[in-house]
Amino acid sequence: MSGKTLAEKILSDKSGDDVRAGDYVEATVDTMLTHDITGPLSFQTFYEVAGEDASPQNPESILLAIDHHAPADGVQAANNHNILREFGEKHGVAQFEVGDGICHQLVVEEGFVKPGDLVIGADSHSTTFGGLGAFGTGVGSSDLGTAMATGELWFRVPETRRFEVTGELSPGVYAKDLILKFIGDVGFAGATYMAAEYTGSAIESLPIHERIVLSNMAIEMGGKAGLVEPDQRTVAFLEAQTGESVELDPNLYSDDDAEFASVERYIGEEIEPQVSKPSNPENAVSVSEVAGTSIDQLFVGTCTNGRYEDIKIVADILAGETLAQGTRMVVVPASRRVYQKALETGVFQTLIDAGAIIQSAGCGPCAGYHQGVLGDDDVCLATANRNFPGREGSMQSQVYLASPATVGASALYGEITDPRSVESKLNRHDDYILSEVQR
Amino acid sequence: MSGKTLAEKILSDKSGDDVRAGDYVEATVDTMLTHDITGPLSFQTFYEVAGEDASPQNPESILLAIDHHAPADGVQAANNHNILREFGEKHGVAQFEVGDGICHQLVVEEGFVKPGDLVIGADSHSTTFGGLGAFGTGVGSSDLGTAMATGELWFRVPETRRFEVTGELSPGVYAKDLILKFIGDVGFAGATYMAAEYTGSAIESLPIHERIVLSNMAIEMGGKAGLVEPDQRTVAFLEAQTGESVELDPNLYSDDDAEFASVERYIGEEIEPQVSKPSNPENAVSVSEVAGTSIDQLFVGTCTNGRYEDIKIVADILAGETLAQGTRMVVVPASRRVYQKALETGVFQTLIDAGAIIQSAGCGPCAGYHQGVLGDDDVCLATANRNFPGREGSMQSQVYLASPATVGASALYGEITDPRSVESKLNRHDDYILSEVQR
Repeated sequence: MSGKTLAEKILSDKSGDDVRAGDYVEATVDTMLTHDITGPLSFQTFYEVAGEDASPQNPESILLAIDHHAPADGVQAANNHNILREFGEKHGVAQFEVGDGICHQLVVEEGFVKPGDLVIGADSHSTTFGGLGAFGTGVGSSDLGTAMATGELWFRVPETRRFEVTGELSPGVYAKDLILKFIGDVGFAGATYMAAEYTGSAIESLPIHERIVLSNMAIEMGGKAGLVEPDQRTVAFLEAQTGESVELDPNLYSDDDAEFASVERYIGEEIEPQVSKPSNPENAVSVSEVAGTSIDQLFVGTCTNGRYEDIKIVADILAGETLAQGTRMVVVPASRRVYQKALETGVFQTLIDAGAIIQSAGCGPCAGYHQGVLGDDDVCLATANRNFPGREGSMQSQVYLASPATVGASALYGEITDPRSVESKLNRHDDYILSEVQR
Repeated sequence: MSGKTLAEKILSDKSGDDVRAGDYVEATVDTMLTHDITGPLSFQTFYEVAGEDASPQNPESILLAIDHHAPADGVQAANNHNILREFGEKHGVAQFEVGDGICHQLVVEEGFVKPGDLVIGADSHSTTFGGLGAFGTGVGSSDLGTAMATGELWFRVPETRRFEVTGELSPGVYAKDLILKFIGDVGFAGATYMAAEYTGSAIESLPIHERIVLSNMAIEMGGKAGLVEPDQRTVAFLEAQTGESVELDPNLYSDDDAEFASVERYIGEEIEPQVSKPSNPENAVSVSEVAGTSIDQLFVGTCTNGRYEDIKIVADILAGETLAQGTRMVVVPASRRVYQKALETGVFQTLIDAGAIIQSAGCGPCAGYHQGVLGDDDVCLATANRNFPGREGSMQSQVYLASPATVGASALYGEITDPRSVESKLNRHDDYILSEVQR
């Protein structure tokens, strides 16, 4: 029998069976998350499955986040928030408040994931946790409610589509550019129900906050998961985040003789900064193809690129400068910890001085609910993950996706700008939580 | 003929007639403001009156603010923002952006008002400017559009209802408590189409940012305007704000023999901190009557109490403390300048450390649009100006109104709390803009 992919290993471990792609398993779930949109329906299913007087199988495995409509942008949103609060209190489940941050970031920060874990979330970007070597995937609210009741969920073991990047990334090129490039190459359905796996020297040298970007956007090519082999950097990151020791299972890698659906090969030095044009992430082109496109709004945030290091990249570029006339910038940190770090280090001061506005941590305008919804004629350049028609507002609005560096450079000129044009201001940040520990 | 009230003097001056209460005048308007809700209809009327190719009579007298749905919380809001931007650019009119602040605060900060001016705004809280000795009043969008076309507007000269406060205010008692007390005493229609006028030693000793609170909420008793006689403090404040010299017309006071509709007399020392119970500002009671009422959300902001000094009072109380368990706090500064000041001075750091969230400058959740809308079961204590049913969200939600000090003290305990219980932490701040000049 052939070797196993990382995805096959994790699902074998969590099901107790020796499984390969295509097999069906009933697997034990380590962490399950839901939020203010999907939570109420998850709870309804939970009670239907478990009974009205039941409690979740493992309350400590559940994370509830108020992040999508946070702060509440309507009465229904506010009522949903209260449903989460009530469920959290009743069952002793971790419930995070308005402004605490995006569910995915909270899972990472609060010690709800470690390498080899199986994490499900009633949110499509639950692929995020693959950046830490966990099998993370999005499920429907009813699946999540069922898993809360039983502690388990069924899965078809996915095939793995591998993306191998040798060499190293050039200045101005970040994980966000890589993932846009991958999605552009294979298409938005190019990894449907597959595990995307990112490997090669350029990936190995990425800090954790960048690996997370790759995994987070696996769903934008249909991926069931997006995995990076965990290593000592993963362990150091998690230990620094949580203050607890993390064991690394040395078996958490894809075997040489594992079967892959395909292997896409890239040379790091050849990859340029990417921009996904409206209205699909797969419309990725080199930044030079769209340079000069006039931009009304810049959006820095989301579970993809709303971490401290992302915001710092933008601030590094805008330090001592102001936004181009007629351009506005909305910054929404991914968590309260990110917010605090940016406040304490003067990053927010730099952005405010440049003319940006900053909202409390959450999903921001990413899904077009509030905090910077786009009008008919608005063109936005965002560090976000999706640019489908109407995603951030009007069906006629236009959203381009790019890295924080490209957004920062474009803010200076009010048009899409190659970040390499401000190369002296570009930094590649280590995971801040690691730099702090090293201090 | 009898002497004149301050309101009669200003409307006489602006109409060129010697008028008294009850007279009708056509008066020259010094400043007119409109915002992202009322702007589009104002412009429509303007073009209907002036013609499609016309320009406003005095472009430099107009201020456009994107403040109510800022940042955009929906496509219509975003489109309205763009209508304001287009009008501002086309006609060379001052147009303030998302995050620049609330229209009324911008009029004060940006030199659009001086004592004796006639200011109209397509927003009911345009009574604000009375705190600087100007006749400020709210008008409908169509009136505003007409005034943009002609530079003038008709008024019925109002009677004046005088509120005289002798002595001085006790620690823990602020202008907000005074105005809630006044509204409670005369009722929410007690000054309908009258000018409220605030006078006496306790008023004279108030810093400008507190005088503005009195004028701002005159509308909550039906007031057409809310006036405080301007003095050297007014001049110093405006000069510090704008860097330009301001002449004070020595005639800007109510004559001894002017006719008043009534004079309500108070002794400063006898006034206690006030709270307006749901669901009308006139439901004002002493804080002791509602102390212990459990609170879910605290809201610090609005054109009433969103200035730096207000936010600083809350931060003084919360320094080194955290919000009571189960209580959340939304802070929304009244302007970008307020935001910057609170950021630079560490006031935001204090609030964030305590567990609050901060949004970009604007109207916030005051009118229930976004940034902290209330659900059915939510109880809010706000520094805001209105608590009508559904004002901040659900028709079943409950809003109490109070001073920043009462909100800050209540944040410590999660229930309405007499600010005098934290007396050692209470400060009465000078206008920050003056303290800066003095430095």
